Amino acid sequence: MITASIIGGTGYTGGELLRLLAGHPHVEVEYVTSRKEAGKKITKIHPHLKGIKKFENLEFMDVDVDKIDSDVVFCATPHGASMKIVPQLIEKGLKVIDLSGDYRFEDIKVYEEWYGLKHIGVLEGVKIAYGLPELHRDEIKDAQLVANPGCFPTGAILAVAPLVKEGIIEERIIIDSKTGVSGAGVNPTETTHFPNVNEDISPYKITTHRHTPEIEKELKKLGNAKVSFTPHLAPLTRGILTTAHTFIREDVKREDIIELYKKFYKNEPFIRIFDDGKVSLTAVRGTNFCDIGGFEIDRNGRLVIISAIDNLVKGASGQAIQNMNIMFGFEETLSLLFGGLRP
Amino acid sequence: MITASIIGGTGYTGGELLRLLAGHPHVEVEYVTSRKEAGKKITKIHPHLKGIKKFENLEFMDVDVDKIDSDVVFCATPHGASMKIVPQLIEKGLKVIDLSGDYRFEDIKVYEEWYGLKHIGVLEGVKIAYGLPELHRDEIKDAQLVANPGCFPTGAILAVAPLVKEGIIEERIIIDSKTGVSGAGVNPTETTHFPNVNEDISPYKITTHRHTPEIEKELKKLGNAKVSFTPHLAPLTRGILTTAHTFIREDVKREDIIELYKKFYKNEPFIRIFDDGKVSLTAVRGTNFCDIGGFEIDRNGRLVIISAIDNLVKGASGQAIQNMNIMFGFEETLSLLFGGLRP
Amino acid sequence: MITASIIGGTGYTGGELLRLLAGHPHVEVEYVTSRKEAGKKITKIHPHLKGIKKFENLEFMDVDVDKIDSDVVFCATPHGASMKIVPQLIEKGLKVIDLSGDYRFEDIKVYEEWYGLKHIGVLEGVKIAYGLPELHRDEIKDAQLVANPGCFPTGAILAVAPLVKEGIIEERIIIDSKTGVSGAGVNPTETTHFPNVNEDISPYKITTHRHTPEIEKELKKLGNAKVSFTPHLAPLTRGILTTAHTFIREDVKREDIIELYKKFYKNEPFIRIFDDGKVSLTAVRGTNFCDIGGFEIDRNGRLVIISAIDNLVKGASGQAIQNMNIMFGFEETLSLLFGGLRP
Amino acid sequence: MITASIIGGTGYTGGELLRLLAGHPHVEVEYVTSRKEAGKKITKIHPHLKGIKKFENLEFMDVDVDKIDSDVVFCATPHGASMKIVPQLIEKGLKVIDLSGDYRFEDIKVYEEWYGLKHIGVLEGVKIAYGLPELHRDEIKDAQLVANPGCFPTGAILAVAPLVKEGIIEERIIIDSKTGVSGAGVNPTETTHFPNVNEDISPYKITTHRHTPEIEKELKKLGNAKVSFTPHLAPLTRGILTTAHTFIREDVKREDIIELYKKFYKNEPFIRIFDDGKVSLTAVRGTNFCDIGGFEIDRNGRLVIISAIDNLVKGASGQAIQNMNIMFGFEETLSLLFGGLRP
Repeated sequence: MITASIIGGTGYTGGELLRLLAGHPHVEVEYVTSRKEAGKKITKIHPHLKGIKKFENLEFMDVDVDKIDSDVVFCATPHGASMKIVPQLIEKGLKVIDLSGDYRFEDIKVYEEWYGLKHIGVLEGVKIAYGLPELHRDEIKDAQLVANPGCFPTGAILAVAPLVKEGIIEERIIIDSKTGVSGAGVNPTETTHFPNVNEDISPYKITTHRHTPEIEKELKKLGNAKVSFTPHLAPLTRGILTTAHTFIREDVKREDIIELYKKFYKNEPFIRIFDDGKVSLTAVRGTNFCDIGGFEIDRNGRLVIISAIDNLVKGASGQAIQNMNIMFGFEETLSLLFGGLRP
Repeated sequence: MITASIIGGTGYTGGELLRLLAGHPHVEVEYVTSRKEAGKKITKIHPHLKGIKKFENLEFMDVDVDKIDSDVVFCATPHGASMKIVPQLIEKGLKVIDLSGDYRFEDIKVYEEWYGLKHIGVLEGVKIAYGLPELHRDEIKDAQLVANPGCFPTGAILAVAPLVKEGIIEERIIIDSKTGVSGAGVNPTETTHFPNVNEDISPYKITTHRHTPEIEKELKKLGNAKVSFTPHLAPLTRGILTTAHTFIREDVKREDIIELYKKFYKNEPFIRIFDDGKVSLTAVRGTNFCDIGGFEIDRNGRLVIISAIDNLVKGASGQAIQNMNIMFGFEETLSLLFGGLRP
Repeated sequence: MITASIIGGTGYTGGELLRLLAGHPHVEVEYVTSRKEAGKKITKIHPHLKGIKKFENLEFMDVDVDKIDSDVVFCATPHGASMKIVPQLIEKGLKVIDLSGDYRFEDIKVYEEWYGLKHIGVLEGVKIAYGLPELHRDEIKDAQLVANPGCFPTGAILAVAPLVKEGIIEERIIIDSKTGVSGAGVNPTETTHFPNVNEDISPYKITTHRHTPEIEKELKKLGNAKVSFTPHLAPLTRGILTTAHTFIREDVKREDIIELYKKFYKNEPFIRIFDDGKVSLTAVRGTNFCDIGGFEIDRNGRLVIISAIDNLVKGASGQAIQNMNIMFGFEETLSLLFGGLRP
Repeated sequence: MITASIIGGTGYTGGELLRLLAGHPHVEVEYVTSRKEAGKKITKIHPHLKGIKKFENLEFMDVDVDKIDSDVVFCATPHGASMKIVPQLIEKGLKVIDLSGDYRFEDIKVYEEWYGLKHIGVLEGVKIAYGLPELHRDEIKDAQLVANPGCFPTGAILAVAPLVKEGIIEERIIIDSKTGVSGAGVNPTETTHFPNVNEDISPYKITTHRHTPEIEKELKKLGNAKVSFTPHLAPLTRGILTTAHTFIREDVKREDIIELYKKFYKNEPFIRIFDDGKVSLTAVRGTNFCDIGGFEIDRNGRLVIISAIDNLVKGASGQAIQNMNIMFGFEETLSLLFGGLRP
């Protein structure tokens, strides 16, 4: 049995960490912090968790790094905030899984350029892993700090990694993603106002989204890649559907592509390859699966790969728990292997 | 370990039975039938269950009652169909949980009148229980056949049972329910056509819905009740929100009502009472909980109770598994106790 | 040709006034005010109006009552704000149509009790009409100030007025309404945050909504009525579906009720009676129609009437323009008679 | 005053033709055909049009080409059906606007290959125009038959035409479109079943959609173009949002691109260019506008153009009426110039 704490427990990723940890046989949740809600029962903010014994008496506490000495700490804090807290936790010798963008970049300059921030919490001599188990499992095993991937990068990288690795596509890759609104977080804004979302679908940060360099730097580790990324906000709560438009360099067949994916992800418990090409967000809803389909090639040599994830699970909290399982030597799928909420 | 079979496994309730049984430690799924899809893998029809080892090699089989000898059989068949199959299963000595309306009525005439069908499978000398554990737990324990309640009745009966039992409201009860579209089943019709549902909310069978006499006969077991029921189709997939308009007979306070509910449902693992009155469909989404709130009394002595359930879980498959747990002496919450998919 | 101004032009009702006035042959829009957006083109805030020549050069101006001397002024201001502005406009001799609740009550005490405000703009000796043309057309004709009805009251009053007038129902009336989110206005709040609305339906102000006394006082002018009202927020943008549960006092038939409604609303251009009982929000979307259906009576003498309106049109801006047409002797349907946006 | 008839009047495009023609001062609707609904009032099928005097007594008639001799006939018939009817109408000397794909291709072989049909209604010596006024206004003026463009092609062609004409992009063009469900028509299918659409977004006919060659052949008239097209079904009723990923051939600036578009579409009443790049489906909802934005260029030379249309209006019936106005010398915007239904 290990103990876990969550810094920033009132948001959607905090809620999902709790929902998923509820069923984990080896983890006890110790502290859940919230500046605003300190002293309140966590079920007051997360009514969906009421009736779960594990959390019955759990209350939000104020953020006090001194008090936290759990075996693992999840930082469900925004970028900019994590860089202030993570170094303190690392200093204390705790294992940390950070859900923000602050520790995802090896090259701090890229981070600072795209995030428009000075990074004031750079860590030297600490084992940091980029927490995408399908590509970095061994590093995660040994890491003290895991930088949990962004939601769009998870769907995008998994969608095209086999192609880049195999070198059968041109370096130009177009990622056209569609995300549910929960990705915007728990705080209401003009962007998330129901009448502004409903009956619309909106591209945003069309060429400037911060996840662009994250996708690109990971793919570049595998082969040639120049990533052009555009996200769209869709009128749904959960899920990211990624349409990857790539260009094949030679004559390959649909079947070869499917075979390549099956081989590449052979032992991955959370990757599901759909031969018929059809994936859907409801099949992954609430789960840690990344479903991959598409596999169609058109007259112009464009190869389309489609991936589907739940942005709050495989795109955030589920993947964080998968990383925790790896870090602590638990079975990787513990508390994470169940079917999607479909319909 | 017991074995279970599902008759009619391609619909939404079949899919939910499988999703929920996936995590049940004492149940092995033996047969899942489907006339249309016999021979296909169940994950072909239920892609959300792909990757779950328990079901990896499970295929739909044709309906053949002779072959089925599981410890328990779930009939996820429509009314009219169940009455043909259930007697055969009962004859074989199997325990049966029927999700249709065919065995919910003690008075066959009421059934025949509201369902417009001759009941050709009446069972004599068989222990049948109406499968609402909160009211009939002991009978369920001993039953060979459990008639699983309808989705609207589950939400409606649980919402007002304490009031009727206590006798503090007039017998006139107005149930105004709002349901998600999954209640209409897996087959497309004009009613479920997206452009007909979206941006609308539609009352249907305004005074003639079959669940009316089911609600009423259960409440009448507890006290006086004349039920007027109107369901509405809302543009969402899962959930039933029930607004019960009742009329108090004497001067009671909100706090007394809340106290009454807390006492009435004290030991119920799946009833959650919300003191602040606020319930939501997302808090129960995917779960077996019935959340109860409202508790407001207006100038005219109207007392409003609100309940929220997931129509496919507490309103169907989850409750069926809860009944199975009771029938077989398992812990009642097994495979059913987890938080809602919120947001 | 008359001139019109709009005070508070950035919200949804301001936008709708403009959309609908665009096609009015006798009205020129003079001033549209906005504290926040003064100096900006109105199409910057209302991009859907771009390309309409009438508004091409129209800019928001700061609120300056001294400058406004249009023939008619629409106050699309919140309650509490209208009472400060309307008296100044009335003093200048202008005709005013106020969309807030400030002037809807003959009895100021009722207003002050339900709105929790001291009314500091009471007008004496001014002809004020409650702007529901179907009940108060003659008074509107002569009024200097029209208090445009609330959205819920419009749907509720029109739904049951014939019954109350005819005296064939008990005084106890249950109004269970379902509204789209645009009713909550243009400003984002927790209530309108997409993930909080989507896949849910929420009762709110279950027994305390301000529209309750407005509905009741209008019905009481027609006969006996004790109104119990509960609104629900539904996951859609536009429309109010009202389910009125009433109780008949004697044995009447569905056909009689339909006949009664047809007679009552015989000459009303914006009331559509549906014999088959079926109304939908998409049929009225974008229009000034109020569709009425239901007309079912159950075993317990409950008679259900359903009405459907677009909350922003018949429930606000459309009705305001209908009132303007009446006040100025224009054809009542001018710029308002077109079909709903269905699907 | 001219007379118009509609063949196939029960579907969504039929309904929209009626809704839009309701306000046309020079058009009388003579016949509206429907095999299935002949004899019924059109408002029985299109309840949103009830109360519009022009249609009060209009009934569906059976399809009988002999009887039809209106000045213009709209064929709102599916592909394959139009090719059987259009030649008969043309033979009678009537002007025809066909909303199907049957007459959109100059090269019949391309049609037959992509539609999988033998074209049995090829017309020789008849003036046929592709009904996109922004590119073919003069031909439309003189045409006897106008082939109204597909919904996706309308949004896609208008989005990139200026770039292709100007020759500043590579020939490789990726069109990633997102459409509302009304594009699938009025008949319920598995694809349009609410629980299958809601909370999902689905690519379909990923590389094989019939609109691909239509987009390409039109762009090729303007310059070099190799079109790769993928449509997605989004959980909304109306609208097509097109994301066009193109690649610039030389160093151009955002401002130059915007300038190019403004010039190209200078006199177009239904094209709205948004300098800030932001377009939305609600701004065009119910209207004949095509809004164009995006105009962003990324590090890799990708230029993104976004267009938004209402698929049933500019993408079908509205454009058909625009074409009618051109063919008959009416003001081009007649009955079509009003603001979008936003929110």
